[in-house]
Amino acid sequence: MQNSSLPYKGIIPPLVTPLINNDTVDIEGLERLVAHTIAGGVHGVFILGTTGEFAGLGQKLRKELIERVCLLVKGRVPVLVGITDSAFSESLNLARTAADCGADAVVLAPPYYFASGQPELLEYLKQIMEQMPLPLFIYNMPVHTKVFFAPETVKAAAEIPGIIGMKDSSSDLAYYKRVQYALRHRKDFTFMIGPEEFLAEFVLTGGHGGVNGGANMFPRLYVELYNAAVNRNFDKLALLQQKVMQISTTIYKVGSYGSSYIKGLKCALSVMGICSDFLAAPFHRFNKPEREKIEQMLDELDYKSLL
Amino acid sequence: MQNSSLPYKGIIPPLVTPLINNDTVDIEGLERLVAHTIAGGVHGVFILGTTGEFAGLGQKLRKELIERVCLLVKGRVPVLVGITDSAFSESLNLARTAADCGADAVVLAPPYYFASGQPELLEYLKQIMEQMPLPLFIYNMPVHTKVFFAPETVKAAAEIPGIIGMKDSSSDLAYYKRVQYALRHRKDFTFMIGPEEFLAEFVLTGGHGGVNGGANMFPRLYVELYNAAVNRNFDKLALLQQKVMQISTTIYKVGSYGSSYIKGLKCALSVMGICSDFLAAPFHRFNKPEREKIEQMLDELDYKSLL
Amino acid sequence: MQNSSLPYKGIIPPLVTPLINNDTVDIEGLERLVAHTIAGGVHGVFILGTTGEFAGLGQKLRKELIERVCLLVKGRVPVLVGITDSAFSESLNLARTAADCGADAVVLAPPYYFASGQPELLEYLKQIMEQMPLPLFIYNMPVHTKVFFAPETVKAAAEIPGIIGMKDSSSDLAYYKRVQYALRHRKDFTFMIGPEEFLAEFVLTGGHGGVNGGANMFPRLYVELYNAAVNRNFDKLALLQQKVMQISTTIYKVGSYGSSYIKGLKCALSVMGICSDFLAAPFHRFNKPEREKIEQMLDELDYKSLL
Amino acid sequence: MQNSSLPYKGIIPPLVTPLINNDTVDIEGLERLVAHTIAGGVHGVFILGTTGEFAGLGQKLRKELIERVCLLVKGRVPVLVGITDSAFSESLNLARTAADCGADAVVLAPPYYFASGQPELLEYLKQIMEQMPLPLFIYNMPVHTKVFFAPETVKAAAEIPGIIGMKDSSSDLAYYKRVQYALRHRKDFTFMIGPEEFLAEFVLTGGHGGVNGGANMFPRLYVELYNAAVNRNFDKLALLQQKVMQISTTIYKVGSYGSSYIKGLKCALSVMGICSDFLAAPFHRFNKPEREKIEQMLDELDYKSLL
Repeated sequence: MQNSSLPYKGIIPPLVTPLINNDTVDIEGLERLVAHTIAGGVHGVFILGTTGEFAGLGQKLRKELIERVCLLVKGRVPVLVGITDSAFSESLNLARTAADCGADAVVLAPPYYFASGQPELLEYLKQIMEQMPLPLFIYNMPVHTKVFFAPETVKAAAEIPGIIGMKDSSSDLAYYKRVQYALRHRKDFTFMIGPEEFLAEFVLTGGHGGVNGGANMFPRLYVELYNAAVNRNFDKLALLQQKVMQISTTIYKVGSYGSSYIKGLKCALSVMGICSDFLAAPFHRFNKPEREKIEQMLDELDYKSLL
Repeated sequence: MQNSSLPYKGIIPPLVTPLINNDTVDIEGLERLVAHTIAGGVHGVFILGTTGEFAGLGQKLRKELIERVCLLVKGRVPVLVGITDSAFSESLNLARTAADCGADAVVLAPPYYFASGQPELLEYLKQIMEQMPLPLFIYNMPVHTKVFFAPETVKAAAEIPGIIGMKDSSSDLAYYKRVQYALRHRKDFTFMIGPEEFLAEFVLTGGHGGVNGGANMFPRLYVELYNAAVNRNFDKLALLQQKVMQISTTIYKVGSYGSSYIKGLKCALSVMGICSDFLAAPFHRFNKPEREKIEQMLDELDYKSLL
Repeated sequence: MQNSSLPYKGIIPPLVTPLINNDTVDIEGLERLVAHTIAGGVHGVFILGTTGEFAGLGQKLRKELIERVCLLVKGRVPVLVGITDSAFSESLNLARTAADCGADAVVLAPPYYFASGQPELLEYLKQIMEQMPLPLFIYNMPVHTKVFFAPETVKAAAEIPGIIGMKDSSSDLAYYKRVQYALRHRKDFTFMIGPEEFLAEFVLTGGHGGVNGGANMFPRLYVELYNAAVNRNFDKLALLQQKVMQISTTIYKVGSYGSSYIKGLKCALSVMGICSDFLAAPFHRFNKPEREKIEQMLDELDYKSLL
Repeated sequence: MQNSSLPYKGIIPPLVTPLINNDTVDIEGLERLVAHTIAGGVHGVFILGTTGEFAGLGQKLRKELIERVCLLVKGRVPVLVGITDSAFSESLNLARTAADCGADAVVLAPPYYFASGQPELLEYLKQIMEQMPLPLFIYNMPVHTKVFFAPETVKAAAEIPGIIGMKDSSSDLAYYKRVQYALRHRKDFTFMIGPEEFLAEFVLTGGHGGVNGGANMFPRLYVELYNAAVNRNFDKLALLQQKVMQISTTIYKVGSYGSSYIKGLKCALSVMGICSDFLAAPFHRFNKPEREKIEQMLDELDYKSLL
């Protein structure tokens, strides 16, 4: 990946991690998932993010996943690897594995047990970048990590060599606008957004793309929405946006807890024949009644038309 | 450890983890710390808790620490081992290491990245206990894990074979009273509290003891306060309680962030010549001005009288 | 009320506000409630607190209530009047009414719409005390006001002429211990606690008493628990404490929302024939199924034995 | 205001409340402010919102303000009146005053002391609408009220006769997209947004306009930004958006607390000669150093070019 190709643009799905059980990758499911998303036109893949249940996976399985995905993708699109961990050493270990396997970049959220102050966060980034073998995206995910990268911290982080972009999953619009403004002179710095409900607005006003979970299921839909926004094709955008909202308010809302989003997503992928719906502990796949709801929701989406 | 000795009682300090750097234990510091606390009369030691910076330590170092502490303690007091991790597999790995090394029990907080619902938490406990080689304490630490074990969940968890106790660090008094009430028929179930400011009240009304960070520095002080409460010696209790509050409002309050407590504690241990004050990333030891404050605070405590 | 009688001690129930509808006091209910609590031996009454639904009552009704209660109490016990309001002027208006009616003190939580910083809070107290016609308690209730009075703020506030005490309803035990420690040289400064689950421990170690909602129903129970704690009668204390916990885990837990506590309390008072269970908007009394649960819970409490 | 003119569209500034002291309106300042904003082309004015410090104002002053503003505006643009109060009765009183004075609509956030559940919120809206003399906007302001109107609640509320629109100040983008989607069949239902940083994106994709605090200072800037978004004039939009972000990251960020936004806004209005910068208790105007910063920031904005 040359600097000439920065910033990254487009749709980079945060891949789910297909699992047979807590310690075993669903290898065939993973192959189908990679093939499915790349066939759908995505501009990269991101593994070991929140949607990829990184936090519930042992270090060994994380490394296996990095190896397998890099082999499966074979350089067709960039591979981004989540290295977030509450332990500095484990994050570095994962980054080294990613580099060894030929991944393109890594993605790092703040250590997520003991919340850090902003100067602590910035110092942490400086320190880890000294040994970082790959370009890095910072990953803002306050609902899980309990801390924001403040706009000033992002601005300072963007000056650290090797930090090339940011994924913001805060869903906070005043925040994201302030980050965007703080970075206005850094045309090479990638700024991506997590919440897919908002992809269109984000790209219309300069955002580089989306790391959207729904693109596991319907990569083409999100790629087309991205393109409609880039081309300011408002009619098409409105149409596609309705589908995205239909997904967001159905598939992701079946269960009762914070984990509902991933449960719904994995269940839908299982219904679609792509991969197993096993979830890493402490979570569990949907039971039959919820699965039947997902089936019905997919029907109502006329989902085959979206593939 | 026989069931006849349940519940656990007394002061079980959550040991800090003496470090040379992110990946290296301060072995001599660890030896002195174990010797110091046992000499001070503690009733057990707890490693790899929040105070032990477990979340910032790589899996390899965690295992090394378990081995070393078990060897150093040599069965003189029970060793409790924190196995909290966001990944189920890593928690089990740590538990197996603890069992192999002869530890007495393990301590588990909820997975701390993706917050769980109460039924998910209970199911998680059931599932992990099926393979758990040691008795287990549940560890309520909502400020870091974002979830409480609800009183009903604690009550149900206490019925799972192998779960023998709870450490509550919520600092929520209505909560702890409800848990205590829910457990009123379970005389064998250990109930310990984290916040040392409150040790006296807790023990006066039936709590079994404290997992108090300050006992790293002054094990005898906390043991004596525990004894004063058990014996309802109110005059002595009031006197010792003042010292505990003086520590709480000085040593732990020097810095600006959530990490101040551990920074102050490790700095004081370093000033006292016990162990290194290195902190695992993303945190850093105090600089000279803060260290000088700690030195002065220790003087004002007349700390040698507390040893 | 002479300074010689400071600090206040004992049980001062936060009276519910008996209502016929949003704008009309249930006058007979109010008479019975005042008679019932005073007959139960309470050491004062506190009106227009959280339990008194102050925030849901119009200014006119608040003033009517102050007048009526002062007349009903006729100086038999001190009357404390909540003057919390998001508007400075309305708080002062209420204080003046309280003074005119012969109330003994007022109680003030922070303005509760726009959260204040600590220096703003302290300045606010100084400013309002310049015109305050009665002694004042500060009221820490962060779940509703979104801000704590920090221990340092309490310490500084205790130096403002006219501020004579504090009621803490935070349920945060490390906090309350720090406040208690900060006030250790102020023997005349009243420190009361809201959560009744914790009354015993609080009084055992120097707290002055409780502003406990359950004392609307069972004033004698809370007064006896207070006395048991003062007298360090641990056997009696344990027995009474069980009743308090039984109430806390039944009557207050019937509904689904934050308002369940007040709904349960008012419903029980209605079942007991004391006053109406009408709640000020936006809340509503329990329907029949919930009322039947409350009836059963009162039976299980053998509630007539508690009167 | 005829139904034929629904939805409301454009920029409706939430007017600050010019004050001489806690109980006295800065009448001349108010006149200038109304004249200034109407001259700037705003599509309505909204008084007694968060920016208008409603919560810090006594009921009497709120009523005086309603009267004065309706007289000053004289029907040139719609007047929206905030009636949020923790007491149902006071909200209704304010609504009646608004109706008597000829205001066009009222705006209501949830009761903000005791947090409500969603069914309680919906019931509250139904109940208050039975007596409501004017059309009503619901006002989502969770940072201050502690509760969201859930998308399903908004959808149900939009079916209650008289509820004609919503102002969302949550700054939560996934939330606002879900509300927008829930309302997609209600073309007559006004949907406005508070955070001005986001006005452009909101209007580009169907939002009706902004209730933006900055329009107190620079009404023309926000009106032009609104028009650029309506006309999809992306070049102009980008230019104006930079100014809005410059304001947001300077004027609103001078102080240290949550109140900084209002302090900065009122200070700037004072520097511009429009009205007094007095703030209702518990807040205070900026001191000289902060005021000098605001002066410099206004210079750097080349603010006279924005008028």
